[in-house]
Amino acid sequence: VDEFETPALIVDAARMRANIDAMAAVARESGVALRPHAKTHKMPEVGALQLAAGAAGLTVAKLGEAEVFADAGCEDLVIAYPLVGESKLARLAALARRARVSVAVDSLEVAEAISAAGAEVGVRIEVDSGQHRAGVAPGDVAELARAIAALPGLRLEGVLTHEGHAYATDDLAAATHAVAELMARAGADTGVRDPVVSLGSTPTARLAAREPGVTEIRPGTYVFHDRTQVAHGAARPEDCAATVLATVVSRPAPDRAVVDAGTKALSSDRLNAPGAPADFGALTSGWPVVRASEEHGVVAVPPGGELRVGERVRIVPNHVCPVVNLFDEAVVVEDGAVVATWRVAARGLSR
Amino acid sequence: VDEFETPALIVDAARMRANIDAMAAVARESGVALRPHAKTHKMPEVGALQLAAGAAGLTVAKLGEAEVFADAGCEDLVIAYPLVGESKLARLAALARRARVSVAVDSLEVAEAISAAGAEVGVRIEVDSGQHRAGVAPGDVAELARAIAALPGLRLEGVLTHEGHAYATDDLAAATHAVAELMARAGADTGVRDPVVSLGSTPTARLAAREPGVTEIRPGTYVFHDRTQVAHGAARPEDCAATVLATVVSRPAPDRAVVDAGTKALSSDRLNAPGAPADFGALTSGWPVVRASEEHGVVAVPPGGELRVGERVRIVPNHVCPVVNLFDEAVVVEDGAVVATWRVAARGLSR
Repeated sequence: VDEFETPALIVDAARMRANIDAMAAVARESGVALRPHAKTHKMPEVGALQLAAGAAGLTVAKLGEAEVFADAGCEDLVIAYPLVGESKLARLAALARRARVSVAVDSLEVAEAISAAGAEVGVRIEVDSGQHRAGVAPGDVAELARAIAALPGLRLEGVLTHEGHAYATDDLAAATHAVAELMARAGADTGVRDPVVSLGSTPTARLAAREPGVTEIRPGTYVFHDRTQVAHGAARPEDCAATVLATVVSRPAPDRAVVDAGTKALSSDRLNAPGAPADFGALTSGWPVVRASEEHGVVAVPPGGELRVGERVRIVPNHVCPVVNLFDEAVVVEDGAVVATWRVAARGLSR
Repeated sequence: VDEFETPALIVDAARMRANIDAMAAVARESGVALRPHAKTHKMPEVGALQLAAGAAGLTVAKLGEAEVFADAGCEDLVIAYPLVGESKLARLAALARRARVSVAVDSLEVAEAISAAGAEVGVRIEVDSGQHRAGVAPGDVAELARAIAALPGLRLEGVLTHEGHAYATDDLAAATHAVAELMARAGADTGVRDPVVSLGSTPTARLAAREPGVTEIRPGTYVFHDRTQVAHGAARPEDCAATVLATVVSRPAPDRAVVDAGTKALSSDRLNAPGAPADFGALTSGWPVVRASEEHGVVAVPPGGELRVGERVRIVPNHVCPVVNLFDEAVVVEDGAVVATWRVAARGLSR
């Protein structure tokens, strides 16, 4: 690892495999399908490990990501995003001819356009279970389901939600239970026999898998975990499998070190947990990156703390997904040695 | 522009040229050198326009950026960052054989390593003028200058600072004057005859150019401007030359629209101005993106506001530099027509 210039994205292969296996066991033991969200890692090699461990398929956010994973051999993809625009629908139709594809839909006009474009795809109605981002209100599912069922080319599968609002709660179990109940009813409202009822987030995944009516979980971050997941009790610090390797480049004051990982390596995402401090990540020693500009991270060094110019540190990200998106490749480490570099093949593919 | 899939980075060529010309005039009329920070645009085509308008050379943050601009023919580069590590110094030495290169240094050990690596480069002592990021204390300049002057290969040129703390002030003029005075003294402390005294930030640039003792300005953001610059009075809304083109993908409630530009297109950077609202950018209509996840931007739609699914909008970024870093290419528009696509050639090059 010492040969790699910094900043670099480091993946601890053993930790990653343990995370993959643990979530696969959760799904297996609860009898639900696991469809990991690949937007966290964006790497075909990681997706292949998830599928080999028993995942039913992969979730992606965007068509460009779906194309990358289909190219890599993944044959079952859910695009958890409303696809809008002629050229996107032409690409969707082409993709659906070479892989099993389902898409999230939260309006009739989007469903009609997909049908009109000749795409033969599965459809999952996206439900707003409390995050208030996209998604139809639960009470509107039945009507939208009836309309979609009449559209040629579309096979209605059930419902899907991202319960992102759970990150703001202190009681994950209660929040997950409420979402699961709401979604099970929404699934029944589709009129589909044995509907897919799919929930998606890492902190709720273990709880959601055991809720009656839930048939699928779509956690993403679990593959690497991060400080936000640790803050929610969804991971231990030693589960964090992706870190940013950085070099101390300046030591201007005893209480301050500057590392060469700023927001271009760590992103500007803060910890997504109630009452969390507003930092940009933390060294494995626990010392936080208290300020960051694009190429500078300012580490708060405690009294007596040692950190020399030239020393290398590992930074645990607050939110690993946008961090991966900032790197072109990941350096994969096993037993202290570099065993591979993987291209972040779906980086930047927001189209 | 309608043919480009979203999200896309759009550059208004006429506005950009006007911004380039305006800052060139500021420097020319004040008799200071203009050395634009290329980290904002990361595009050789834009750097070439800045040089053609009279820039003395370019500033970059990282060696990888310097290599891209040298490849593109820029022969005078300042790397405003302490370079640390054997492989970086080998690259620096190679770069210095094909371009005039100066580097920022804020410790003797970094200077000694550069000298030992055989790099023949200019050196500017980075001074902490109040931001408290990297940089030596003003009182330590004289001693460091004497030590650097004795190192083979290094030609001491003067001093450099990034007065980023000016973004936190309500009185830019007073803050700029204080930095300029401090830096002029620091320049004299180097013992260099006619030292470079270089200040760098867009909101202070026009003021700094007129301060006695200042010999160079290094603004970056001015080339495109953004909402932060407008908040500081350094630009008018109609000066903002880079926007994110996005599509409305969901309209789940009358007061809420979802666009396909989230933090992967807008970054998570908030407005960097005192008392500014915590949003993620704003449509050209003024409607703010009040929440964002990686692929979703949630727009607050005022009562009666119309925004249909499929409609395209332009979003003005809070901080344009990290936004450019998220795109592989920029779509250049002139008189409503696409005239070029430029590769963001130095994107992601934090090494």
